Amino acid sequence: MTTPMNDLDALRAELAARETPAMLPALAYTSPEVLAWELREVFAGTWTCLGRVDELLPTGATQAAVAVGDVGVLLTRDDERVRMFANTCRHRGHELLAPGGTSQRQSVVCPYHAWSYDLAGRVVAARGFRDLEGFDPEEHGLVELPVTVWCGWAFGHAARPIGDPGVPDFALHLGAMDGIVAAYRPQDLRLGRRHDYEVAANWKVVAENYHECYHCPVIHPELSRVSPPASGSNYHLSGAWVGGSMQLGQGMTTMSLDGRSGGRPIAGVSPTTIEYVHLLPNLLVSAHPDYVMVHRLTPVAADRTSIECAWYFPPDDLGGLPDPAYAVDFWDLTNRQDWAACESVQRGLASPHFRPGPFAPDEDAVARFDGMLADAYLGRAITATADLGEDPTGIVQ
Amino acid sequence: MTTPMNDLDALRAELAARETPAMLPALAYTSPEVLAWELREVFAGTWTCLGRVDELLPTGATQAAVAVGDVGVLLTRDDERVRMFANTCRHRGHELLAPGGTSQRQSVVCPYHAWSYDLAGRVVAARGFRDLEGFDPEEHGLVELPVTVWCGWAFGHAARPIGDPGVPDFALHLGAMDGIVAAYRPQDLRLGRRHDYEVAANWKVVAENYHECYHCPVIHPELSRVSPPASGSNYHLSGAWVGGSMQLGQGMTTMSLDGRSGGRPIAGVSPTTIEYVHLLPNLLVSAHPDYVMVHRLTPVAADRTSIECAWYFPPDDLGGLPDPAYAVDFWDLTNRQDWAACESVQRGLASPHFRPGPFAPDEDAVARFDGMLADAYLGRAITATADLGEDPTGIVQ
Amino acid sequence: MTTPMNDLDALRAELAARETPAMLPALAYTSPEVLAWELREVFAGTWTCLGRVDELLPTGATQAAVAVGDVGVLLTRDDERVRMFANTCRHRGHELLAPGGTSQRQSVVCPYHAWSYDLAGRVVAARGFRDLEGFDPEEHGLVELPVTVWCGWAFGHAARPIGDPGVPDFALHLGAMDGIVAAYRPQDLRLGRRHDYEVAANWKVVAENYHECYHCPVIHPELSRVSPPASGSNYHLSGAWVGGSMQLGQGMTTMSLDGRSGGRPIAGVSPTTIEYVHLLPNLLVSAHPDYVMVHRLTPVAADRTSIECAWYFPPDDLGGLPDPAYAVDFWDLTNRQDWAACESVQRGLASPHFRPGPFAPDEDAVARFDGMLADAYLGRAITATADLGEDPTGIVQ
Repeated sequence: MTTPMNDLDALRAELAARETPAMLPALAYTSPEVLAWELREVFAGTWTCLGRVDELLPTGATQAAVAVGDVGVLLTRDDERVRMFANTCRHRGHELLAPGGTSQRQSVVCPYHAWSYDLAGRVVAARGFRDLEGFDPEEHGLVELPVTVWCGWAFGHAARPIGDPGVPDFALHLGAMDGIVAAYRPQDLRLGRRHDYEVAANWKVVAENYHECYHCPVIHPELSRVSPPASGSNYHLSGAWVGGSMQLGQGMTTMSLDGRSGGRPIAGVSPTTIEYVHLLPNLLVSAHPDYVMVHRLTPVAADRTSIECAWYFPPDDLGGLPDPAYAVDFWDLTNRQDWAACESVQRGLASPHFRPGPFAPDEDAVARFDGMLADAYLGRAITATADLGEDPTGIVQ
Repeated sequence: MTTPMNDLDALRAELAARETPAMLPALAYTSPEVLAWELREVFAGTWTCLGRVDELLPTGATQAAVAVGDVGVLLTRDDERVRMFANTCRHRGHELLAPGGTSQRQSVVCPYHAWSYDLAGRVVAARGFRDLEGFDPEEHGLVELPVTVWCGWAFGHAARPIGDPGVPDFALHLGAMDGIVAAYRPQDLRLGRRHDYEVAANWKVVAENYHECYHCPVIHPELSRVSPPASGSNYHLSGAWVGGSMQLGQGMTTMSLDGRSGGRPIAGVSPTTIEYVHLLPNLLVSAHPDYVMVHRLTPVAADRTSIECAWYFPPDDLGGLPDPAYAVDFWDLTNRQDWAACESVQRGLASPHFRPGPFAPDEDAVARFDGMLADAYLGRAITATADLGEDPTGIVQ
Repeated sequence: MTTPMNDLDALRAELAARETPAMLPALAYTSPEVLAWELREVFAGTWTCLGRVDELLPTGATQAAVAVGDVGVLLTRDDERVRMFANTCRHRGHELLAPGGTSQRQSVVCPYHAWSYDLAGRVVAARGFRDLEGFDPEEHGLVELPVTVWCGWAFGHAARPIGDPGVPDFALHLGAMDGIVAAYRPQDLRLGRRHDYEVAANWKVVAENYHECYHCPVIHPELSRVSPPASGSNYHLSGAWVGGSMQLGQGMTTMSLDGRSGGRPIAGVSPTTIEYVHLLPNLLVSAHPDYVMVHRLTPVAADRTSIECAWYFPPDDLGGLPDPAYAVDFWDLTNRQDWAACESVQRGLASPHFRPGPFAPDEDAVARFDGMLADAYLGRAITATADLGEDPTGIVQ
């Protein structure tokens, strides 16, 4: 009788035997078991972006239920402080709030047997229990999970409770990406448009595609007209992120079909540069002179990814926003060109004859991203890894 | 290399390490492997209710094909005796009758190669084989399975052939529930209405919800008006069943939106009591002064259950039935309130942070039900377990 | 803790313990794991029929992308020579051509980064790599796979590269079936009609049904009128195929609802015989005096098979074809009768009480087919097995 090696062990064995950098082995992109591990360890278990706080908890809302990797969570806001809990009652496990829902109540009341908690997760009432010997409300508070806010986005670690030594430090996770993105003050920009895509490819195939423009001359004629594919250079700085910048072509003001902007410049940033940075696992920030585009990746299956794409603009003095079409039309077209390529890669790498090929010189950021994931599979924390080998010059060609 | 423990072993290990009663571990509600085991051992392998005999085999029908757990069976009726067989021909495995179908033929003829059997399962003809050396018709009769009829319902054990010592005694399985339900003479009542529901929750979450009214004040305002949630008490008698009774409120005649009955009383039963009893694995009998409601649970997946709900009424002297709406409207509303709660529990207990919480005093029947299942996972027969520790007084508060 | 035996090992253990021929054990028809093994070893790993070359690569086409078992392949045609490659770029795994697509280009260009290859699979260009130390184009050519053409059909072995000693010889695989089918000159016939079916049964249940007419009197009244069910005899010749012939009834010209032909005879073949031969794994050829019907089986799941059925006719001197309805109407009716039986067998053999029954004398070809598969599961190549025990007389009753 053969005892089959599980997929994660097989993946690790293949990675451990490698001598040169290359794409991850096929199992990393095709195995439901590897995805289940990633959802728990890389998504729930690092710092996943949950979205913008002002979209998650609009004015008046005190509670919101969303998912982080494979874990349902309840966000609460109490006197301006945001907290996060496992969205499961300590009595019989009923969700405290329906997923996707929000509430304006000042306490968290389980809809099943009405156990209630305050916004800090402490038991306020458990009908029929209070007088009983052996029931200690202190032992049945909600399970609190780490959450933080940066540049307007909420980031949660949902695999371990707050205080657990296995929770990495957010500042280390973010590293030097802070300096690049914060200049655009994303928290002051406002939502112009949002598209939801579902792509039949692993989330890492989508990320790898984001990290190189070697494919641009072949599949993105429109993009190549406004931003020369060879104009890019990648960062090599501290933090669990990967990315670089590209330059606009001669006479171009922003990324749009005709290179002209329909909006207004963001104060204090370069008028000729686009920053493309990806904070692991799921936040891709593409910062333009006049708008910031954000992709948020949510794995649905080993071969399927849900992608929220949103465009944010600086408002004018009266709070008005430009018509977002000039940015949206350009990137919607480019996104769809990318998704088609990703879906074909997903099918192609499922072949038994697929072997990860050599990286081209322009694929150094793909190599860096795949290396971080390889380290994660082998048991090294992404944040720790990202902090190794920092290059103080910051730019590599 | 790690050898993953299978889900059933992990569940058993977790149960064996427990010190206090609590909900079952999450795996019991979420694992496809645990459900597959239950379908074979708890559904096919105890005494599952197949439905009412007069609905399964209407007048004139001699054969009917249905499923018991994961096993397709053929019911036959021959001179008033009901028999049950595996619904698979002894030649190449073709079904003897299409699932859900009935037949009025006096022999069972396989539709593929016309092997035929009498209604007792003996080979009558096997074309091309009779004269051959080495083919003994006696060795190729249908596989007969245990079946019995009680109060108008058929109950089958489909995992083991008739005569196998592993088949538990039906009378032991039923135990003292007989005395409670037989008083309503369900076999003499007639079908008024039937609803089919599909709920995105494990079948045990549905059963647990049935076994406590601790949630009634929170999610069932209509029910709480006609039957005080605290009016219940649970039985602790012999047999593989769980349940109790509740009382109608002051001035209420039955469970309906206004507490009034649109039918006629069932002779010889209490005018103020509702009996709620659940014969494992799948028959929930809710006996009212004027009608009997029956839920029959069929697991579809670890997180999905099909539920047939039917209302039976005593006919008048001319055989007429009342308009069932007064009972159906009330319970359809209440059912849907319950299903929504069950679906939320199912999602909530899938969280890695879910830990089975303490039972409230009013959840003693849930504790009893979960205890029976825990025993089953640990290898003790449900019937044997149920017969232990009988309390002759019969009622526990 | 129990270590579950995997399905393939359990199947092998059951086969190894057998004493008499019988249907394969239930696992062979129901296990997703067994199907995955078959797709790789029996479909991709022997010689699967891909279809007619003139349909795969119509005039002008130089490239076509299809699947062989679980492997996507690229067929190319270069100066009349057909080649086959893994349909996955050697760089990042993007498919070279979209599945189901064709191309008329003289080179194979990956649509992602424009690596390009000639029709023989050699690297022609890899942008950005040529001048780099350490990149050798010779090491990154397409993975070529064995393909051959016989009687107008293409057959591919997609599990192993060309030259691998594990690739069986096509001539040995085909064996004596060549002499039976080649007489009909299928390559000179032309397509009259094509139907696509999807059947809820394992592909081997469909094949077994094809290999016996013991069921014909029961489910095929129309067929039994034109071709006596007992008129058949089966071949026992070299090669990885199974089949036999049947005779037309008195006064019948072909298989049609009234036994009359609406076409013209195929020159040089028997006017009273139908040949039913099945080259493993997936090509069923039913050769009539006036047309050839072909079923091509593609497993979709353990319990689901896609079936392409096509009818080919000899053209008249002007290249015209007869109205195919006389053949199509008859076989479409008969096909559907068969599919219904197959679907019921699939459900019936999933019963825990199913035991493979004895074969009737008229089921000798089923026994031969199941024996070949049993050998394959036990690690013996189908081709090698098929070549054992050849009976030079060729016909067994």
